[in-house]
Amino acid sequence: MALPNSWLTPPPRPSTAHAALATERQRVLTKPPGSLGQLEQIAITLAGLTGTDQPTVDPIHIVVFAGDHGVCAEGVSAFPQEVTAQMIANFASGGAAISVMAEELGASLEVVNLGTVGEIPELPGVLNQIIAPSTANLAETPAMTSSQVVAALTSGDQTAERAARAKCRLFIGGDMGIGNTTSAAALACALLDQAPHTLVGPGTGLNTEGVARKTRVVERALARHGNDQDVLSVLTSLGGFEIAALTGAILGCAARKIPVLVDGFIVSVAALTAVHRQPGVRDWLIFAHRSAEPGHHAVLKALDASPLLDLGMRLGEGSGAAIALPLLRSACALHNRMASFSDAGVSGKSED
Amino acid sequence: MALPNSWLTPPPRPSTAHAALATERQRVLTKPPGSLGQLEQIAITLAGLTGTDQPTVDPIHIVVFAGDHGVCAEGVSAFPQEVTAQMIANFASGGAAISVMAEELGASLEVVNLGTVGEIPELPGVLNQIIAPSTANLAETPAMTSSQVVAALTSGDQTAERAARAKCRLFIGGDMGIGNTTSAAALACALLDQAPHTLVGPGTGLNTEGVARKTRVVERALARHGNDQDVLSVLTSLGGFEIAALTGAILGCAARKIPVLVDGFIVSVAALTAVHRQPGVRDWLIFAHRSAEPGHHAVLKALDASPLLDLGMRLGEGSGAAIALPLLRSACALHNRMASFSDAGVSGKSED
Repeated sequence: MALPNSWLTPPPRPSTAHAALATERQRVLTKPPGSLGQLEQIAITLAGLTGTDQPTVDPIHIVVFAGDHGVCAEGVSAFPQEVTAQMIANFASGGAAISVMAEELGASLEVVNLGTVGEIPELPGVLNQIIAPSTANLAETPAMTSSQVVAALTSGDQTAERAARAKCRLFIGGDMGIGNTTSAAALACALLDQAPHTLVGPGTGLNTEGVARKTRVVERALARHGNDQDVLSVLTSLGGFEIAALTGAILGCAARKIPVLVDGFIVSVAALTAVHRQPGVRDWLIFAHRSAEPGHHAVLKALDASPLLDLGMRLGEGSGAAIALPLLRSACALHNRMASFSDAGVSGKSED
Repeated sequence: MALPNSWLTPPPRPSTAHAALATERQRVLTKPPGSLGQLEQIAITLAGLTGTDQPTVDPIHIVVFAGDHGVCAEGVSAFPQEVTAQMIANFASGGAAISVMAEELGASLEVVNLGTVGEIPELPGVLNQIIAPSTANLAETPAMTSSQVVAALTSGDQTAERAARAKCRLFIGGDMGIGNTTSAAALACALLDQAPHTLVGPGTGLNTEGVARKTRVVERALARHGNDQDVLSVLTSLGGFEIAALTGAILGCAARKIPVLVDGFIVSVAALTAVHRQPGVRDWLIFAHRSAEPGHHAVLKALDASPLLDLGMRLGEGSGAAIALPLLRSACALHNRMASFSDAGVSGKSED
């Protein structure tokens, strides 16, 4: 099995011509220049990404990637491992946060099951692309084999291809996997050359003692992994199925000119991995929110990202991106439908 | 003309029983406790305000109050005074930011014209309740007469009555009035006993010299007004028609148990005025965003408010509240429709 083209080839560039036109339009709309704050830049960015004078984010495709983590054997999570499989069923039956938000937003929701320890029956809306029941324990051995990481990257790339075929204009990726903040923290430490205690946090709700235990696990993983900074090696050694698939999806979306609204800690680490492999991917990313998970700050800083929201969320599933999505719709609506000063016969700013 | 009842009488209290039930429900939904951050508290607050197990913000009523300011004679705005009337026409024809957002949100939009220097024809969706072509120059004399301030408060109270009759579950007030950040800064200085240089900002876009000029104007106004901290005196002396009407609308909504989503600097100063008159009004306020106008910070602090958004917006019209509204809808949808751990058969948090 070969690596996807999106792993091997730099993505296209956004349209600077459309971004320039959008910048000019923002200056003549009936409002004090700059008074829509970050929404103005969002509209300009989306005009450049979608290569149009009338930016839109619809239709939207949401994909949640799920997989289990061998590192759960180290006691790194506040929730038992069986929850990964149980939550896949909850996604399918509409009871999870991302299920409610997808319905609320009128977005399609796809769940990709990459392998769970708990057994799962066939479920509507769940695509089973099982790699293994879980990754290996990254504190002891590489989390994935080389064929497993390629399978996960390919699964992500294929979701981008399906989104492109459905003519989606925005992609939201989400994660589900008990133990995945341990894997994400280890990846971020390796890619950013930071010490584990600066990036490890409580995840779903560890106490102080639990965070200390998790930090020691990440220290062991990094000591085992060594200094190899090759992105594929780092991802194979320290990643998870769903994080690798998210990395593949982000690379795949950029390759196919689909903007990605990046969720919290886990998806940002996948984005960091993708950007380390193909720096041009950064152009295709809009950051939805700042997670309460403390390691997110360093990852956002490394990506030079200023997220739209800071609501103390830390749920995963793509939920923070879904919550932020209406801000993008509003930015587009204002950009496309507001009158200009000349159209509306409104006087402009006086000379200073 | 008498002051409205909502000025004279404390508002009702929210339902603590419904807030307690909502707090309990948030604990059993399929997510780590607390992981929806501020959205959890929004749902709990709205359950208490609306006195229901299934909080909602719909239907929503948006009202923009417009009026001109005599203080424009002092050169305190980056835009000419005629823009107030021109923007009323732009609201009516659908080209303004708040018009686009009202349509986007499926909310009703009412514009109340309290008096402009520029002439305005009859326009659809614009209610003419003309008090005078403008307030007086607050640097020189009281901005309003006592009958004018009562008329403005009453106009606001009447919009709350119309919202109540239409069974609205959320109220958004907006402002339009060239010069109104000068009036709002003066009001906030008087109510909070702060120096003008701490609260005066660029408004729609003054340069440094303009801000210094505006600061001196507010200093003159406060020197003229003196130390009288009676809320009605302060509002009459330093207010504007639209700010007084917003104060009346906020008092009127609280009296009628309608939650208010508070916009930026101008509306927050109206809220501050309302809370100074009736402290119980604070319970009925949710704060949408932190404006780029620097004086907003002190006003938010005085109201113990942590707004949902901080996007650098500074447009007025209620636009920041409209942009934040989908966050409230999302908070309600998640609260009402997510499955519980027991419903979904998902295991809860392990013991620490």
